[in-house]
Amino acid sequence: MTAVAAKSRSARTARLVTSLLRDYGSITRARLKEYLTINVRGEASYLYDLVNDYPARGGSAMRPTICLATARAFGAPVADAINSAVSLEIMHNAFLVHDDIEDASEERRGNPTLHRLHGVPIAVNVGDAMAILSLRPLIDNRAFLGGRLALRIFGETEKMARETVEGQAIELKWRRDVPGDLGVVEYLQMVLKKTCWYSTIFPLRVGAIIGGSSEATLEALTRFGFFLGAAFQITDDVLNLVGQQQRYGKEIAGDLWEGKRTLVTEYTLGSATPAERQRLQAFLTRARDRKRASEVRYVRSLIYKYDAIAYASRIAHGLAGAALHEFHVAFRDVPKGRDRDFLAALPEWVIHRAA
Amino acid sequence: MTAVAAKSRSARTARLVTSLLRDYGSITRARLKEYLTINVRGEASYLYDLVNDYPARGGSAMRPTICLATARAFGAPVADAINSAVSLEIMHNAFLVHDDIEDASEERRGNPTLHRLHGVPIAVNVGDAMAILSLRPLIDNRAFLGGRLALRIFGETEKMARETVEGQAIELKWRRDVPGDLGVVEYLQMVLKKTCWYSTIFPLRVGAIIGGSSEATLEALTRFGFFLGAAFQITDDVLNLVGQQQRYGKEIAGDLWEGKRTLVTEYTLGSATPAERQRLQAFLTRARDRKRASEVRYVRSLIYKYDAIAYASRIAHGLAGAALHEFHVAFRDVPKGRDRDFLAALPEWVIHRAA
Repeated sequence: MTAVAAKSRSARTARLVTSLLRDYGSITRARLKEYLTINVRGEASYLYDLVNDYPARGGSAMRPTICLATARAFGAPVADAINSAVSLEIMHNAFLVHDDIEDASEERRGNPTLHRLHGVPIAVNVGDAMAILSLRPLIDNRAFLGGRLALRIFGETEKMARETVEGQAIELKWRRDVPGDLGVVEYLQMVLKKTCWYSTIFPLRVGAIIGGSSEATLEALTRFGFFLGAAFQITDDVLNLVGQQQRYGKEIAGDLWEGKRTLVTEYTLGSATPAERQRLQAFLTRARDRKRASEVRYVRSLIYKYDAIAYASRIAHGLAGAALHEFHVAFRDVPKGRDRDFLAALPEWVIHRAA
Repeated sequence: MTAVAAKSRSARTARLVTSLLRDYGSITRARLKEYLTINVRGEASYLYDLVNDYPARGGSAMRPTICLATARAFGAPVADAINSAVSLEIMHNAFLVHDDIEDASEERRGNPTLHRLHGVPIAVNVGDAMAILSLRPLIDNRAFLGGRLALRIFGETEKMARETVEGQAIELKWRRDVPGDLGVVEYLQMVLKKTCWYSTIFPLRVGAIIGGSSEATLEALTRFGFFLGAAFQITDDVLNLVGQQQRYGKEIAGDLWEGKRTLVTEYTLGSATPAERQRLQAFLTRARDRKRASEVRYVRSLIYKYDAIAYASRIAHGLAGAALHEFHVAFRDVPKGRDRDFLAALPEWVIHRAA
């Protein structure tokens, strides 16, 4: 394919993905609003204002859109999957509130994080409230799907949430114990838990379960979701270093300030001289408020010196290729259409998006 | 009744309650251990050590025992209710971990709080993990109770958890906005949400639902649970001021350091002279680390001056009486036995316990 043809295909992919994100995103947000305004009177009403803060800031709606598109591709109507998609989006926002506390993050979707606005005690409470509010749509699933399927989706949710919290625990452990340079496998295992389960594997699996797909298909979807989610996370790590703050919505190089371990830091650690390595490790260990901007600049210069961003991008490309392969296994018998096309376009989209 | 007869009845009550707490507590802890050691290998294994920390410190097992005793009293076997009891006990411990962060509490069950031992980021994550781990026993309910009843208990759980998180939100709001003195009704409404729903109402209702009781009975149990839980909480507030640290397991007067609003503080505010009132309000507003021990002593002297502890105890006694009345409505048709006797003894026990 020529460069011009590749560029035009890439633009087509972006349009396709963006249009489905917009359509399914707006369906999701309408239902989500109902579930997040369940008790807006009385003394606790301020809680519901805060519960609606992160969702109101926008967000790509990638996760609910994957869930709805997969359900549709496997023959189920949007109405059958909307509650699962809404629950996931609420839970995603709940994770963000607590992750931002745990990572001492400063910005989220272009604004100060919730704990910076209202303090840690209130932000812990708001995250808990959101996690609890994500349960109601799953209980209401019974009316659309029957008790058996509703409980099966609860089971998928519990597994997904457990994987996510374990992934977050691994990252916190790395920040506390500061291991030597981590291998790709250790990094990918953490990402599988922290990112893939809830961002891609769960919405794919639940969409397909609602569509009545087989166990074999679900296994292929789990692999598709793993490769897709890992490519997404690695690209996110890269965007944190090179993206534009306005589009990215988070502080640029925030990951370095937070001491987060990514493929980029690990490749740099593995390539560095003993002296550079020692300095980089000491930097990653230090608490955020004891780091200086000049040190962050030094770490970025090391990252560029060893071309660690190009390395991470190569890995992301490889994973996106593997994702596309698994897509074709999982969707072998699924007829063509907008939903299937969207899902097929995701591997390319996640590595080329600008934010 | 003579004083001697009252004392001997009280001792009998304590023995009865203690023996059921011990028996049902040990059944609960055995099953709880299985659910809290679900993934103890690999990088995230330290998370499961921390998840087991608060449960391993002991605790009265009052909530699961109420649930099991109610199920048995209404004719269901322990096996039918054990998973709901275990889920509640896990969720209770999850609440404690996050409440301790939100309240900046120093001690829990005689040891430093989790966030003091491991930092806020890890404690937020551990509380989330525990909340998620409380879902699995409810999903497994399907095998014992069928899908319909399992989902109904999920619905009760979601309602209970939402009430609890709203109650905590009200307390946090009072700490932030520092209202003038609160009335008894405002205090009781907060306690209904923060304490009663999960400590008494939920275990009573779910036990009775599993036992197949009627809607009318459930409503009487909700009222019983409200009065019982409120008497329990007020007594807890009093013990925080006058209890022995070793038996109580929390820092004595910790509530004053934390600026918590209780019947004791509100009665004192309402009785105080304008000058005392101003000084007390300023004290309640100040952050914990800006309070001095001499100020805490002053506030305690005000509390004693206006006999606010006797006032709170009188209210707790009145509520315990109301609880006993509702008990007899709810358990009118329930045959006598150890479980029924335990539940009947609770109103007296909650106001006379030493810890």
